[in-house]
Amino acid sequence: MTTVLAAGVFDLLHYGHIRYLEEAKKIGGLKTRLVVIVARDETVRRLKGIDPIIPEDQRRAVIEALKVVDEALLGFEDMDLDRVIQQIKPDIVVVGHDQDTIGAQVEKIKKARELDFRIIQISQFGEDDLNSSSKIKRRIVEGARTRS
Amino acid sequence: MTTVLAAGVFDLLHYGHIRYLEEAKKIGGLKTRLVVIVARDETVRRLKGIDPIIPEDQRRAVIEALKVVDEALLGFEDMDLDRVIQQIKPDIVVVGHDQDTIGAQVEKIKKARELDFRIIQISQFGEDDLNSSSKIKRRIVEGARTRS
Repeated sequence: MTTVLAAGVFDLLHYGHIRYLEEAKKIGGLKTRLVVIVARDETVRRLKGIDPIIPEDQRRAVIEALKVVDEALLGFEDMDLDRVIQQIKPDIVVVGHDQDTIGAQVEKIKKARELDFRIIQISQFGEDDLNSSSKIKRRIVEGARTRS
Repeated sequence: MTTVLAAGVFDLLHYGHIRYLEEAKKIGGLKTRLVVIVARDETVRRLKGIDPIIPEDQRRAVIEALKVVDEALLGFEDMDLDRVIQQIKPDIVVVGHDQDTIGAQVEKIKKARELDFRIIQISQFGEDDLNSSSKIKRRIVEGARTRS
């Protein structure tokens, strides 16, 4: 059994998220347990300066409702990746195309703790404008302006 | 095997959708195949006067990625429920709390064709503001106004 760890905010779930998670699971091979860390509201607020639209419990429940996901957990309040990695003991940590900061943090933890999991960054799928929560939000806001 | 049919637009997937689909599947009992009809862009445009944010293929793929869903199909271009029902041959048609129009149409088809499936309307879950795509959109728009 290979444990693959992925993470994200997943504020407005879209097809790009699912492709990312499916790709993460595929990397682990046939017998893979995909564990997904869903960022806490507090973490999003601190890192992005805005509240997520959907509260953390619902974001977590939606991710765990996906076929491809074996377990979805809320991140620690202080986004302590070190503790997450020690708890999940992943064989592979998959980092999204827009998660460079997380990738660097994971790399640092790996070195500091002399762990031997693999870190794999997944490239973006296509050029689709709707494979991004912020682009979806922009489209909603623009639609409202046009109508008002 | 009980076939349960559910339908919706599912423009921005949220926890309320998942609760609705889980409830639909539960109604069918242990051996249930849950088939979900996802409304076409053209149908949404005609009925609501606005384009969905997420295109139909992606809305369908996201619904089929849910554990609870066995099959997700795009509706016919003209939302011909009669044809959908003849194709799927449901034992139960589950109608959402906000789908009175669909419920009435299904009832009419059932009578006209003398079919014996059950029609069950599910009540809304809780008072959560975020169990509605339009409320989610409103929150996104309001957030943008506050910041601009």
